[in-house]
Amino acid sequence: MAEEVLVFGAWGSPFSRRVEMALKLKGIEYKYIEEDITNKSPSLLKYNPVHKKIPVLVHNGKPVAESLVILEYIDETWKDSPILSKDPYERANARFWAKFIDEKCLSAIFKACWGEEKEHEKALEEASELLQFLENELKEKRYFGGETVGLLDIAANIIGYWLGVFEEASGVELMTREKFPKLCNWANEFVSVSAIKENLPPREKLIAYFRNRFGVGTASK
Amino acid sequence: MAEEVLVFGAWGSPFSRRVEMALKLKGIEYKYIEEDITNKSPSLLKYNPVHKKIPVLVHNGKPVAESLVILEYIDETWKDSPILSKDPYERANARFWAKFIDEKCLSAIFKACWGEEKEHEKALEEASELLQFLENELKEKRYFGGETVGLLDIAANIIGYWLGVFEEASGVELMTREKFPKLCNWANEFVSVSAIKENLPPREKLIAYFRNRFGVGTASK
Repeated sequence: MAEEVLVFGAWGSPFSRRVEMALKLKGIEYKYIEEDITNKSPSLLKYNPVHKKIPVLVHNGKPVAESLVILEYIDETWKDSPILSKDPYERANARFWAKFIDEKCLSAIFKACWGEEKEHEKALEEASELLQFLENELKEKRYFGGETVGLLDIAANIIGYWLGVFEEASGVELMTREKFPKLCNWANEFVSVSAIKENLPPREKLIAYFRNRFGVGTASK
Repeated sequence: MAEEVLVFGAWGSPFSRRVEMALKLKGIEYKYIEEDITNKSPSLLKYNPVHKKIPVLVHNGKPVAESLVILEYIDETWKDSPILSKDPYERANARFWAKFIDEKCLSAIFKACWGEEKEHEKALEEASELLQFLENELKEKRYFGGETVGLLDIAANIIGYWLGVFEEASGVELMTREKFPKLCNWANEFVSVSAIKENLPPREKLIAYFRNRFGVGTASK
């Protein structure tokens, strides 16, 4: 049966890029539909009535929303090139840290880059503390997933690519090589993987987008 | 090999009760350690240095934190009496709605019960809208998991038991039988399952705890 795989996304979103990265890693063909997040399409609202957000994966007519949920769905539906280990403990770890990135790191990074001036030092320190956990979690591994890119690497695309963009757009220095040598090495490795590289929005365009959307960063105020 | 399974929890927490419910459903013996959340133990801080929160499951010395992550770990480690379907789409649905309960419903319910007085009507309406999604998701099923209790039922323990406690403690009426007949039936079925019933904190004690902690509800102000 010919499969129909649709991805509703936005070009600059790390969340819909996650979905595309996983599909590319597994060699699954899909049709990409760019959403205007200021004027959402009836299809998006139909497929994700709860959150009304990208990304949504629609597989043979059935929608799945929430990027981390989609990643697991992809891994369980197309089993080649797994992005989660078979080992329950490693799977739990990947899920734990992916959740940590979405629920803790992202808002801390935003606050460090574009938060209130008077809280800048504190926000910077908090974001650094969170990144330190990820630095430690890398241990001596090439990727979070071990020898190959896995779910946690994909979830960490925010750290591996978008963070550098946020830093440049806001003028804030956060993930320095001195403090985070492993994360920096990992980021370099990560963006060199072809399925990942093909799914990164152009850096300059992204910097312009975030600068335009969130203004000058806290450090430059 | 004799397995060691520890659960760090707090008696009134729906989150650590989730872990106990899953273990009980699967017939796994465990040792329960009650944490004083106002004075956390060195063990808890060692096992969950990131969030410093219960619940933590420690299996043969290895800690897993975050209740939904723990539920998946339990299901993958002890495969009898599965709490997730084998079907990737049903699994994705269960994960999606469990996440929805934690990230959307819980805060909306709290706001409806103990939020600011001037926002009470709006908060009540918002919480009702969210519960309506769950009402619809039940369809004609006995449990969210179908014929047996699954991960989403366990995650929904907040709706199935704690919500009634919140209502009584705060004096707010939210999940009425008129508006949510399916959810009300489900809640009755859910709390009648023996592995669940054994893991519910005493209702009166819980009401007193929440009344004491959060004070008189918005509706009574």
